[in-house]
Amino acid sequence: MAEPGVNVSDGRMRAVIERITPCVDGGRFAAKRIAGDEVVVEADCFTDGHDTIACLLRWRRDGESAWHETPMAPLGNDRWRASFVAKSVGGYRYTVTAWVDHFLSWRHDFARRVEAEDLRVAALVGAGLIEGAAERAKGADCTRLKGWAAQLRSVSDAQALRTLGLDEELAAAAGRYPDRRFAATCPAEYPLVVDRARARFSAWYEMFPRSASSEAGRHGTLRDCEAHLPYIARMGFDVLYLPPIHPIGRVNRKGANNALVAGPGDPGSPWAIGSAEGGHTALHPELGTLEDFRRLAARARACGIEIALDIAFQCAPDHPYAGAHPEWFRWRPDGSVQYAENPPKKYQDIFPFEFESEDWRALWNELAGVIRYWASEGVRIFRVDNPHTKPFPFWEWAIAEIKREYPEAIFLAEAFTRPKVMHRLAKLGFTQSYTYFAWRNAKHELIEYFTGLTQGSGREYFRPNVWPNTPDILTEYLQFGGRPAFIVRLVLAATLAASYGIYGPAFELLEAAPRDPGSEEYLDSEKYQIRHWNLEAPHGLADLIARVNRARRENPALQSDASLRFFPVDNESLLCYAKSAAEVENLVVTVVNLDPHHVQSGWVELDLASLGIDAHTPYQMHDLLSGARFLWSGPRNFVQLDPQRAPAHVFALRRKVRTERNFDYFL
Amino acid sequence: MAEPGVNVSDGRMRAVIERITPCVDGGRFAAKRIAGDEVVVEADCFTDGHDTIACLLRWRRDGESAWHETPMAPLGNDRWRASFVAKSVGGYRYTVTAWVDHFLSWRHDFARRVEAEDLRVAALVGAGLIEGAAERAKGADCTRLKGWAAQLRSVSDAQALRTLGLDEELAAAAGRYPDRRFAATCPAEYPLVVDRARARFSAWYEMFPRSASSEAGRHGTLRDCEAHLPYIARMGFDVLYLPPIHPIGRVNRKGANNALVAGPGDPGSPWAIGSAEGGHTALHPELGTLEDFRRLAARARACGIEIALDIAFQCAPDHPYAGAHPEWFRWRPDGSVQYAENPPKKYQDIFPFEFESEDWRALWNELAGVIRYWASEGVRIFRVDNPHTKPFPFWEWAIAEIKREYPEAIFLAEAFTRPKVMHRLAKLGFTQSYTYFAWRNAKHELIEYFTGLTQGSGREYFRPNVWPNTPDILTEYLQFGGRPAFIVRLVLAATLAASYGIYGPAFELLEAAPRDPGSEEYLDSEKYQIRHWNLEAPHGLADLIARVNRARRENPALQSDASLRFFPVDNESLLCYAKSAAEVENLVVTVVNLDPHHVQSGWVELDLASLGIDAHTPYQMHDLLSGARFLWSGPRNFVQLDPQRAPAHVFALRRKVRTERNFDYFL
Repeated sequence: MAEPGVNVSDGRMRAVIERITPCVDGGRFAAKRIAGDEVVVEADCFTDGHDTIACLLRWRRDGESAWHETPMAPLGNDRWRASFVAKSVGGYRYTVTAWVDHFLSWRHDFARRVEAEDLRVAALVGAGLIEGAAERAKGADCTRLKGWAAQLRSVSDAQALRTLGLDEELAAAAGRYPDRRFAATCPAEYPLVVDRARARFSAWYEMFPRSASSEAGRHGTLRDCEAHLPYIARMGFDVLYLPPIHPIGRVNRKGANNALVAGPGDPGSPWAIGSAEGGHTALHPELGTLEDFRRLAARARACGIEIALDIAFQCAPDHPYAGAHPEWFRWRPDGSVQYAENPPKKYQDIFPFEFESEDWRALWNELAGVIRYWASEGVRIFRVDNPHTKPFPFWEWAIAEIKREYPEAIFLAEAFTRPKVMHRLAKLGFTQSYTYFAWRNAKHELIEYFTGLTQGSGREYFRPNVWPNTPDILTEYLQFGGRPAFIVRLVLAATLAASYGIYGPAFELLEAAPRDPGSEEYLDSEKYQIRHWNLEAPHGLADLIARVNRARRENPALQSDASLRFFPVDNESLLCYAKSAAEVENLVVTVVNLDPHHVQSGWVELDLASLGIDAHTPYQMHDLLSGARFLWSGPRNFVQLDPQRAPAHVFALRRKVRTERNFDYFL
Repeated sequence: MAEPGVNVSDGRMRAVIERITPCVDGGRFAAKRIAGDEVVVEADCFTDGHDTIACLLRWRRDGESAWHETPMAPLGNDRWRASFVAKSVGGYRYTVTAWVDHFLSWRHDFARRVEAEDLRVAALVGAGLIEGAAERAKGADCTRLKGWAAQLRSVSDAQALRTLGLDEELAAAAGRYPDRRFAATCPAEYPLVVDRARARFSAWYEMFPRSASSEAGRHGTLRDCEAHLPYIARMGFDVLYLPPIHPIGRVNRKGANNALVAGPGDPGSPWAIGSAEGGHTALHPELGTLEDFRRLAARARACGIEIALDIAFQCAPDHPYAGAHPEWFRWRPDGSVQYAENPPKKYQDIFPFEFESEDWRALWNELAGVIRYWASEGVRIFRVDNPHTKPFPFWEWAIAEIKREYPEAIFLAEAFTRPKVMHRLAKLGFTQSYTYFAWRNAKHELIEYFTGLTQGSGREYFRPNVWPNTPDILTEYLQFGGRPAFIVRLVLAATLAASYGIYGPAFELLEAAPRDPGSEEYLDSEKYQIRHWNLEAPHGLADLIARVNRARRENPALQSDASLRFFPVDNESLLCYAKSAAEVENLVVTVVNLDPHHVQSGWVELDLASLGIDAHTPYQMHDLLSGARFLWSGPRNFVQLDPQRAPAHVFALRRKVRTERNFDYFL
């Protein structure tokens, strides 16, 4: 028989710690929070027998050597909880420690003893434990504890002994010096990534700078973009995302509407990066200079807008890398570089990197260096193009590297791919993720998808950023639903998810023509040609977008996703959901008519108890889009939505908090 | 910036492995199976981009140095599955390895290429990959692969090239020699404990040997027990569990009905172990000798019955340990040993061990030695008394130690305590666990509890063993429900759980008088006095029990728990559920009237699709208790149960498989 406890450092470590939350893959990946969040940690902690245990949450910022310790409180059923405030952006770790606390056990039993002799013997036991605490204590506590133990040894009157033994203040003093010799600590240290607020709450506007010219026919520049900033700020966006602004390849350049051969004036796709003018750290000469970029970024900042750049790790055939680093590409037996393909489709204008290169370390360094270059230029938001076609270990390493230097950096993963791949990218470090939102249109689809996003296992690490359109995605719903469809998708995006974006001006100008029937590609897509947009067009949605984004800014309920709950409506075209920010009593209820063609009406059934609303007191529904106010009472209320007038209500629910003697009835 | 891939052994290991199942606490504990089981392992495996991956399940028996490898098949949504048969009892480990398979990727793409030039270049790429496989291959395969590559390099006709490139047999040859240089292997090796069949399917009978005498007033012996074996075997039990058979302490011995002071003739509680006659490895002299024990065990075996002993790690004050090992007990300041207590209750007849002793290693060794002693005497089933009052690390170590020597050992945890404590004991190695079954009487309680047991996270490691009564538990339901209550609880126990037990003869003789009103203690409990039972009493349930146990033996559906499913009945007193053994098309449907006082009837609604029953073909319900046969069709059928006649149906559902030309219509 083997020696006892070969795998046990000490058989007297009797406390058990299980099921710590938050937990992503057993601590392999980090949960995500925002600076200032209260991080609530729970664990199952218990021991054998009837002894009392004590549990501590231990946490520290990366780089701190000492742990902070916070006592955990029991929730019942052996579950314990404590929290700490993650004050600053960066990495944290937390774990739990627990031990059998003989002093607490003694006190618990002492309170239940009745016989005098029993109390006297127990007092002596307690005195021994308190003397142990006194040895660990310092200064005044040490003296007090010694005194307490001496009294427990000398007093003989049972009633006096009981009062003495249960003294609250002395117990608190003893509790400060527990015997932790046999404390068990969960071996895993759970990582936590704390981001800045924009990681959780952001409104993105995507535009092609080359279409920003004020005159049709002229190539837009970064300088032209400056003129758009007030327009974008007025709509209420806080992130301006620019597709790649680097030199565009000339070899195998695509023409308008993805034509295989470009005409002489065709500008090419901005995602075909690199030419004689430079690669991923250069600027496309026709857009302007680095100085122009810095100026645009500064002016945007002044409007409350941050520039997000596109990280697209692929090369046009004439990218400088192709000549300088042939080892970073895969070569075909015919002596040419392997272009991107998905047989029988070929993308001869794009060379992917060969991540199985012998020289992978240099390649990783170079690519991380690209991000680092733009970060050193002040860029803190990166939209990453197709991250799922580059190895997961690369992203895990690269994002950690960049965030070590720039902890406020935000990475949005543009991975429209299978669910587990998208989740892996979110786990390994991407701050936000594109979603399947564009293809979720029916009521049951939206309920199922957003319930999964906000309550499924991904809720700890997958932050959805939802887009009704992108330059690649003009959905069938938008193609055929007309203006109401755009409004519906805008309101859904902006109220279902704390982060959303639109590709404009195509979106607010209701651009809806596809390249081919059945295609999700735009006709005359900006991906391949320069467009000129009339931002003053009377049918535009800019004013409505401004109202929606104002509602988001003014209502904390819309600034995070965890509180999202759906409610029944007896009409399959009407969707109703609420979000709340309990700490400020903010509650937003949205009702959307998903049918862009017909008036729909029905009875909404709110779960008033879960919303904290009294069932017998009327409450006011203040529509933040129209300004109208409705008085509702009880759980069931009638809603009718005409897509031509207003396909959605975004209600701030205001409780009646004053009496008739006050002027404003509702808060 | 740090060197790329500090935490990555090679950046070219692009495959990802996640969420391997079965998995208990991330591999910290073992899943449990039975020898001969097909162990189905699944994992999420994927890589970046569009490449094809290959996945292998790797498994080995403890002690084997080499892994067995089984290819995993994709289930869709990046989930992969493979299985192996765990042929023998003992420990196993499994894990998963996956890699980007360039040959498979090449073949997948090759099949989709259309242009001749494209095919020719691709053929050269393929030739290179196949030459790589040839280098790894041996003998004939090597030659064939070299030949294949040469052909791919020389053939120029596109159609011929396509046929050649997609040759199935040659692809299989190349597939035998994959390039696994960059294979990723899940770092965790998941443990699996494989037990013998009785660990999952067992019927226990508990009896006090000292009550086995054929004459009232005489102390029963192990020899007397032999006479009971045919009776127990006739009822169909396969485990005979004896409460402790060791010398009983004399100091502070309890009297009848738990009286504080024993009378001169009182035999004491068998759980107050140890006296001058010896301790945990000795036999109570009045029961007989070690030779008698060996004889009883042998005769039991001949009847298909295994003896289970009680492991109760506590001491009477006069246990030899108390004198020989004072360091294994806790001492009170008054110089006495700390007895068991739960203030204000005191159990002065019991000394618990002090597991925080400095000498804990010697104590662990001694206690494991007790189990080992009885194992060396041929005992392979241990019912462990109150394991939750001894440290978890002790049990994890001790059970592993014993099972290393005696892998067929079975440990039943008698821990009636909080759920997480019970689960921890099951996780750390107990083979079976007592449950809350005795206190689950209402329909919704039974559905909720057994759904949790069979479908909750514990299903991989927590094997319920359910008891309608024990010497400590005479439930209110049995006290007031009369004979129907005993039948109801028997049928529930035996058909809801593959392992169950009764404490007899109290159970089959319908003993129902409590010591005090509101108490679950038996009046004149055998724990403190010798009883004499009339096994021939006409009201006894022995015949019914025999029928129930025969149904269990003859129907594989009742021999495991994973298939349990409940079905609706429109009567809150009627409970309906099914168990199935799909591999042998065995299906048992049980309907129980939970009301022991009134006739109840209702419409049972089976989910025929989930049971694999055609909705339009009648099926036969053969009641295994009464022998009656009913013809049912469709999902809804009527049931009426009179508690006085038969409170339950245990139906074998027989599908109609023959036509009228056959004699027996139903199988």
